[in-house]
Amino acid sequence: MKTIEWKKGKVRMVDQTKLPAKLEFIYVKSLAQMVSAIKIMQIRGAPALGSAAAFGMVLGVSNLDVAAKKLLDSRPTAVNIKWAVERMLKIARAGKGMATPELKKLLLKEALKIAEEDVEINKSIGRNGAKVVKKGMSILTVCNAGALATVDYGTALGVIRAAHGQGKRIHVFAAETRPRLQGAKLTAWELKQEKIPFTLITDNMIGHLMQKGEIDLVVTGADRIARNGDSANKIGTYAAAVLAKEHGIPFYIAAPISTIDFNIQTGRQIVIEERPEAEVTSIGKERICPKGIKVRNPAFDVTPAKYIAGIITEMGVFRPDRIKILKA
Amino acid sequence: MKTIEWKKGKVRMVDQTKLPAKLEFIYVKSLAQMVSAIKIMQIRGAPALGSAAAFGMVLGVSNLDVAAKKLLDSRPTAVNIKWAVERMLKIARAGKGMATPELKKLLLKEALKIAEEDVEINKSIGRNGAKVVKKGMSILTVCNAGALATVDYGTALGVIRAAHGQGKRIHVFAAETRPRLQGAKLTAWELKQEKIPFTLITDNMIGHLMQKGEIDLVVTGADRIARNGDSANKIGTYAAAVLAKEHGIPFYIAAPISTIDFNIQTGRQIVIEERPEAEVTSIGKERICPKGIKVRNPAFDVTPAKYIAGIITEMGVFRPDRIKILKA
Repeated sequence: MKTIEWKKGKVRMVDQTKLPAKLEFIYVKSLAQMVSAIKIMQIRGAPALGSAAAFGMVLGVSNLDVAAKKLLDSRPTAVNIKWAVERMLKIARAGKGMATPELKKLLLKEALKIAEEDVEINKSIGRNGAKVVKKGMSILTVCNAGALATVDYGTALGVIRAAHGQGKRIHVFAAETRPRLQGAKLTAWELKQEKIPFTLITDNMIGHLMQKGEIDLVVTGADRIARNGDSANKIGTYAAAVLAKEHGIPFYIAAPISTIDFNIQTGRQIVIEERPEAEVTSIGKERICPKGIKVRNPAFDVTPAKYIAGIITEMGVFRPDRIKILKA
Repeated sequence: MKTIEWKKGKVRMVDQTKLPAKLEFIYVKSLAQMVSAIKIMQIRGAPALGSAAAFGMVLGVSNLDVAAKKLLDSRPTAVNIKWAVERMLKIARAGKGMATPELKKLLLKEALKIAEEDVEINKSIGRNGAKVVKKGMSILTVCNAGALATVDYGTALGVIRAAHGQGKRIHVFAAETRPRLQGAKLTAWELKQEKIPFTLITDNMIGHLMQKGEIDLVVTGADRIARNGDSANKIGTYAAAVLAKEHGIPFYIAAPISTIDFNIQTGRQIVIEERPEAEVTSIGKERICPKGIKVRNPAFDVTPAKYIAGIITEMGVFRPDRIKILKA
């Protein structure tokens, strides 16, 4: 099962707002529908967003400049949208002068290639990352960097899948990841499906479990990595990295090279998306705080390179200060 | 309005499981009812639990040994229950041989004294703590160490109340404090009532906000403090303290001397309560994760003394390694 795939002229995607209660699909037929699905997070996760943007360009073939702008504006932090849009625009330039149906075919071919490559890249990330996982390790991950955050297999969860598949008898701690609870809803769902042993915890238990010696390794995904290795990922990742450093626990980022933004020097240049207050003030139908109060909701934070033991890519595991060589 | 008070033969307490939606009171008439109210957290917060235990001893006058045991077993981490039970047993020994009605009167007098003292102690903590608060500071607090965690006024929120009352134009960040959300439900409710400017955040935003320079000071309560200054408090406090250290932000504990357990040398001896899994897996009626999965729910963690700039007590602000002198 793929998180996102092209089916008979439509983009079939898992509706991630329905999990874990129901596995439902949405069928996206227009650019507007794709932009909305991205904004309300029916699809999320940096590599999956890259694929969604590529298919979005196919659907928006009638006006690719508008399609590009709408997709780029849909969510600001994950660089994979930009990466995919630019790749699609390059193809469009190569197909300049073509009639729309032919151009659409050309674009679809590229979007399908992006989706196909993503799975292969994740499997390579998994294989490379599994080398840093020792037998019997307890691995913390935050948010969801699994099959659901990609076309299939996952980045951080790809590493976990690979290590588990190699019989390393690992145990996973999944941080629930407020406010959207992707850890509780998506990572827990994936790990349960795969029968990988895991424990769900709230985000504020990470420090305590590290202090008690119950966590040996941290692996998370990333939404944008600067040239110097500073990495933006789901809110709470930075705190986990600081706590890991304090306890001498290695902290790794697992991400495809398409997540590296070679145009920015440091993480300070990464725009952090602020999402709606309702994500913090309510959980499902449950209002959890008084009305009329001030709330913050930054969706990401930036972990400076100095906290990162390595960035696990499809080309191998690199020290953060070495990733710039991957530009070529 | 008091969180807990004696009214016509019953203990009237704010039902804290109903806030912030409704301000409701429960009237506790028996020891069994008090023990249940403590367990399900209709009343919570170390100093409030001390007062609840004292009134519980009054209600359990017919068999004080049984009452003491049941109260001590109700929640294991907050030392104030033990402190209050022991203080009540001492009074009972002084009244040995008395008929039950007389003994009950004697015990009630002591329980009322404990409740009254608590408010005065908190006001002293507030005054002492306000000295470490500079004008315009943004102060992070976790969980609820406010009027609702005490008989009235609060410990950490007592410091915040006092600083606000002195016109220091402070701003508070209230961490929501999963799994029970005392920050979102109780601290937000209190701060709103008092018109103290504040922002509600999820627990995993603390690191990011510190990194952005938006937090100047951390003040939390405590449930048990060892002789060496190691302090147990609500889960997540330790992570906040580590993050504060990493960013050079002073981290203070505000607690009455009754929270210091002079019988234990270090925090390693503090028993950490594990609470029901349902607190993590559901929020209100909302199930947030798949069924049949493994969950952890430690209710507290221990912040080692080295992370603590000072412990704010009714006798002044002490370096953690100095609190042992308070025994006398």
